Amino acid sequence: VAVISVSDEGEFGLIARITSRLTTTDRVLLGPGDDAAVVSAPDGRVVATTDVLVDGRHFRRDWSSAHDVGRKAAAQNLADVVAMGAVPTALLVGLACPATLAADWVDGLADGLRDEAELVGAAVVGGDVVSADTLCISVTALGDLRGRPPLTRSAAQPGDVVVVVGRLGEAAAGLAMLRAGRTEHPLAEAHRRPTVAYSEALALADAGATSMVDVSDGLVADLGHVAVASGVRIELVARDLPLSQELADAAEELGVDPLSWVAGGGDDHAFAATLPAHLAADRPLIGRVLAPRDDAEPGVSFLDLTPPDVAGHEHFRS
Amino acid sequence: VAVISVSDEGEFGLIARITSRLTTTDRVLLGPGDDAAVVSAPDGRVVATTDVLVDGRHFRRDWSSAHDVGRKAAAQNLADVVAMGAVPTALLVGLACPATLAADWVDGLADGLRDEAELVGAAVVGGDVVSADTLCISVTALGDLRGRPPLTRSAAQPGDVVVVVGRLGEAAAGLAMLRAGRTEHPLAEAHRRPTVAYSEALALADAGATSMVDVSDGLVADLGHVAVASGVRIELVARDLPLSQELADAAEELGVDPLSWVAGGGDDHAFAATLPAHLAADRPLIGRVLAPRDDAEPGVSFLDLTPPDVAGHEHFRS
Repeated sequence: VAVISVSDEGEFGLIARITSRLTTTDRVLLGPGDDAAVVSAPDGRVVATTDVLVDGRHFRRDWSSAHDVGRKAAAQNLADVVAMGAVPTALLVGLACPATLAADWVDGLADGLRDEAELVGAAVVGGDVVSADTLCISVTALGDLRGRPPLTRSAAQPGDVVVVVGRLGEAAAGLAMLRAGRTEHPLAEAHRRPTVAYSEALALADAGATSMVDVSDGLVADLGHVAVASGVRIELVARDLPLSQELADAAEELGVDPLSWVAGGGDDHAFAATLPAHLAADRPLIGRVLAPRDDAEPGVSFLDLTPPDVAGHEHFRS
Repeated sequence: VAVISVSDEGEFGLIARITSRLTTTDRVLLGPGDDAAVVSAPDGRVVATTDVLVDGRHFRRDWSSAHDVGRKAAAQNLADVVAMGAVPTALLVGLACPATLAADWVDGLADGLRDEAELVGAAVVGGDVVSADTLCISVTALGDLRGRPPLTRSAAQPGDVVVVVGRLGEAAAGLAMLRAGRTEHPLAEAHRRPTVAYSEALALADAGATSMVDVSDGLVADLGHVAVASGVRIELVARDLPLSQELADAAEELGVDPLSWVAGGGDDHAFAATLPAHLAADRPLIGRVLAPRDDAEPGVSFLDLTPPDVAGHEHFRS
């Protein structure tokens, strides 16, 4: 049976194929098919963010299914919207792909984008498909702040405590497993697509968080952004960071410090937030916010250890 | 003097370099630097569209400057927003580029995006930079409908007249000139970056247009989308299409039918609109909208000729 490629479908055939798989919501006032989409923005503001995923860098087609890639591409953008304290409403997707790509790979991608968006009540409302030598997926997510101020990185206050929701280090551990050839290891799934704690993060926003960040570069790196933007120090307690037995076992198996994954790994899209101690309820704390001192500038440190190399990931640096 | 590449700058250096060149507006409630941007959407709705440009396909770096590419990338998205009758408010930009790309090329790109956005009072509010073998630029534009219904493709009415604002065929002629090695020909500029009639298009919306489309695939192709979506026939008058002496001369020089550019060329981002005849004022008319007949399905035809090959551009088809 011949494989149908995107060039067999042509641009309009491919678009029709994609849009036939999508669902909609009552936030979508005009969906795909016109020059632009129209999405409701009930409080008169819209939250917007864009991330780009490149084949061979952010995913590998031999490691991840098209559905996984779609879910991951959606998740990392939806997480950015949620980190502002907003409920995601819509995704737009730019797909640059080789003409030889199988059309059913694009079907899987569309399904993954749709399925992840549905987890938060959002929908794919538009996009573009073009041909390119390298498969490259750009996603824009929009969101609704529900009348609240945006939850920025710059409002952490000395005296706040630090909490985290979602998984930490599992995607990094999964990537290490995949690189070690352990493609069937359970943690590999965490690399293929994150399991994002959207509702727990929105609950933190509702509970009175002063700042929140999507952990995409690593906990220490991303809280470092919060510390600098807020002009505070953040002191973490390494022994209080979540560490599952599965992650500890995987670290031992590969001979790495599990903290390098938990404190330095991105791609799980956990959310780290600061909030006044009395609002933390029974959430486990991982650290606290302190005023800077003459001998201690804004940044992240550990109470109970000298940090290992957990600087986080930066593109273009090797 | 050594050229500074994007890998020399690193991700955060590159982002700082880009954001330092950007400007803002009172529509931007939170600009670059957090997990997401916040943009005002005063009437409770937001218009959103995404387009992707790929190096070697949508532009060539030996033919176009970085500033040209930035203006073009912004223009084609801003035009999609304006074609809905909306005023653009914000751009988000995803840049995938080789680590060896000169950082000052990215400066030029950012300047071009900023300058084109400023033409309509919009600003770049966010984005992402990642490394990739192929240079790929994805732009999302947001816009404000100012309390009006969106101007879709599906509401053209029999009895309407057809008008066009902006240039037609010049980008296609410019591309033909560039391909013929005539890199200094004045029309080559029209390929490098379109000159888009944003305000004239918004005036058409305000005047009571029933439908409007951004001409990106070619006049006949894009009006074909309007005809099918509206369930009407659109009859154009070839002799009434705008044709400058410069375009006629260029066509004669290259031995092509200028109508193939005017009716079949995209990339000028002209706007074609339908509106009731009594609202057309003194605008030049290029055709009229007719009801379909048993022997004439929705589509575009010419009153005064058998159309040449003006089917427009479709990606993935050669």
